[in-house]
Amino acid sequence: MTATLTIDPALVERYIMTLAQYGACGETGVCRAAYTPAWTAAQQQVAEWYAAAGLTVWRDAVGNQWGRLPGTEAGAVIATGSHIDSQLPGGRYDGVLGIIGGIIALRTLNERYGPPRRSLDVVSFCQEESSRLPGANLLASRAIIGTLAPEEVETLRSYDGETFREVLASVGLDADRIGEAIRDDIDTFLKLHIEQGPLLEHERIAVGVVDAITGSRTYTVTITGRADHGGACPMDLRRDPMVAAAAIISEVLATARDMGRPAVTTVGRLLVEPNYPAIVPERIVLTVNARHPELTGGQELFARHEATFAAVAAANPQLGLTWNGTHGGEPTICDPGTVRLLADVAREQGITAKIMPSGAIHDCQIMAQRYKAAMLFVPSKDGRSHTPDEYTAPEELAAGIHVLAAALYRLAY
Amino acid sequence: MTATLTIDPALVERYIMTLAQYGACGETGVCRAAYTPAWTAAQQQVAEWYAAAGLTVWRDAVGNQWGRLPGTEAGAVIATGSHIDSQLPGGRYDGVLGIIGGIIALRTLNERYGPPRRSLDVVSFCQEESSRLPGANLLASRAIIGTLAPEEVETLRSYDGETFREVLASVGLDADRIGEAIRDDIDTFLKLHIEQGPLLEHERIAVGVVDAITGSRTYTVTITGRADHGGACPMDLRRDPMVAAAAIISEVLATARDMGRPAVTTVGRLLVEPNYPAIVPERIVLTVNARHPELTGGQELFARHEATFAAVAAANPQLGLTWNGTHGGEPTICDPGTVRLLADVAREQGITAKIMPSGAIHDCQIMAQRYKAAMLFVPSKDGRSHTPDEYTAPEELAAGIHVLAAALYRLAY
Repeated sequence: MTATLTIDPALVERYIMTLAQYGACGETGVCRAAYTPAWTAAQQQVAEWYAAAGLTVWRDAVGNQWGRLPGTEAGAVIATGSHIDSQLPGGRYDGVLGIIGGIIALRTLNERYGPPRRSLDVVSFCQEESSRLPGANLLASRAIIGTLAPEEVETLRSYDGETFREVLASVGLDADRIGEAIRDDIDTFLKLHIEQGPLLEHERIAVGVVDAITGSRTYTVTITGRADHGGACPMDLRRDPMVAAAAIISEVLATARDMGRPAVTTVGRLLVEPNYPAIVPERIVLTVNARHPELTGGQELFARHEATFAAVAAANPQLGLTWNGTHGGEPTICDPGTVRLLADVAREQGITAKIMPSGAIHDCQIMAQRYKAAMLFVPSKDGRSHTPDEYTAPEELAAGIHVLAAALYRLAY
Repeated sequence: MTATLTIDPALVERYIMTLAQYGACGETGVCRAAYTPAWTAAQQQVAEWYAAAGLTVWRDAVGNQWGRLPGTEAGAVIATGSHIDSQLPGGRYDGVLGIIGGIIALRTLNERYGPPRRSLDVVSFCQEESSRLPGANLLASRAIIGTLAPEEVETLRSYDGETFREVLASVGLDADRIGEAIRDDIDTFLKLHIEQGPLLEHERIAVGVVDAITGSRTYTVTITGRADHGGACPMDLRRDPMVAAAAIISEVLATARDMGRPAVTTVGRLLVEPNYPAIVPERIVLTVNARHPELTGGQELFARHEATFAAVAAANPQLGLTWNGTHGGEPTICDPGTVRLLADVAREQGITAKIMPSGAIHDCQIMAQRYKAAMLFVPSKDGRSHTPDEYTAPEELAAGIHVLAAALYRLAY
């Protein structure tokens, strides 16, 4: 069955601008870390929109906000959703689109077709970014599929040093009950999101259907030398970590460039100690974030980076050089049937689409471990993301919601 | 005339340890920015030592603390001294040695030989570092030779935003009278200091006689690209300033290494924005501090660095790359007669010495613009300086003071 739908861009824009008021910072920025007052108020706004759209509303044990259009038949649920916690500052679209899209899709389907056969859920995840609890991004979806360990309520800590237990308590949740957030009744999870990259805009395509989500590894490389007076210590007696840092940066970036798309590597964070113009640095810590959506491609990329670290260490015996790699997850293959369905629906609705991997990490990759899952992208202006500069035109947002709604119709009606 | 002197290392050590209590931080650190309460108390301690050594004591219009052993004849003064303001944190020896050395030298000469023929002055400069008023290092000596402009009492500002006028007022000084600090009656200025580099220690030489003080230039290089999502933006569409930063760092450090001693170049400060692991940086600002004690050598070094900046900019048209060079002064040639005298005196006293340039900047280079001036170095353990790790053994300090006192004897008796 093919849905006949109209999504009003002006309505989408109103929702976006309303939610952007919660935690607004600067002209177009959003500072809305999970479990903060701004986030709590925004989740309440989402709950009100759920109710206004005719959905049943509940909050689960970790603070995910759910809404349901109940189905007329029993059986596993079709779900969609995303997150409203943000980078600090982030923009108005990252995460938000997936929830507003879910609300508008369910409201539109309910108005046009009445109750679905299978229940349709929309969820606003509690924490997808790591702006409140470092290293705890994708926490919400881990709670839902059941891989958030009970001890993490003590081990996870906010930047301010609170335990996750204390953070949960601050919004009236009991850490001993997080197991109740697990859902074993979801059949398929769809997520609509901005691309966060420039490809759709460059190729003038309305919708990306994501067939794989990148695997990633973040290496923290620590290079230790010796602080010396920048005038009084001759070059030949220095132990300058800057030499090795520059060699590593050049080589890892060249490696990803040489491998070509879809390999990417970023050196985004670099700390120099003591960081004075006339003092040879004592220590440099830099991050190498490498991503590839294919297993073998990632293996090659990571292996080449590790070989670079080893080679630079060997070439600089005067320095201490260590690295450790934090696994950001294996590449995720989205459910092929769902990917096909999304591409078919886009074609039927006359909306241009391409199948593409996601270079960004998404809670969808966690959901895909337990449920059938896939994603939809809409263009990001200039590829900007995780910044107040994020922008996608209302018509482009509406096209993504259109495909989402039509796909939910195919799955649930 | 050759002096017959003994300098007691234990006495030197007592002075050092006493002064180290003012602004002590950590186990061996000193945090004593100019004009702060810790500095004021330390200057008062210096004044008391002057008085105890039989010197006439006065404070000048910018806060330099002077002591004088009056001469029996009229004529220009022989002066020595240094500073007690420190880096934050700095060590116990930088600057301090020159004042303690001056006090002990004058006290020893007075005890052994009575009043000199020519007046002997010792000075504790108000500000030689730039830890209170950024960019205002060497301020004290500029006030003495008369190149501190009256308007600088308004334009110089502390890190806290106070004008230099306000800073002066905080220690009871009137900014309108800074011209009174000018001295036109100094014949020769000697400065004793730790080397701040490893050469004397490596070569097991007791004293360095400085014949030239480095010229320097500090370039601030700003590279502007575009922040992009580190996963979603492919390498070939990025405008990543890290690429150019690494190329510049590698090249400027290699240039100084290739030119060999005494050329030195340091990339000591590097700031990345926004500095997140998974975001391609928007902007990188780095400093390139280059030094050479010879005019032509410096010209070559600076020209090669500027050619590197231009070449990297040309190779990366996708980036904005600008630089500006702050002149840290031309190389200073110390007074050849005074250098010869210091070397002769060391030999007569049986103390090993070598003639060497100073890679560090010193107020002596300002004094040399108006008076005959030269410097003495003693070894720095492991070449460490501008850190709480600074150390020179009492016997090594005493050897430097010994040469200083014997030279003052030759000049003033």
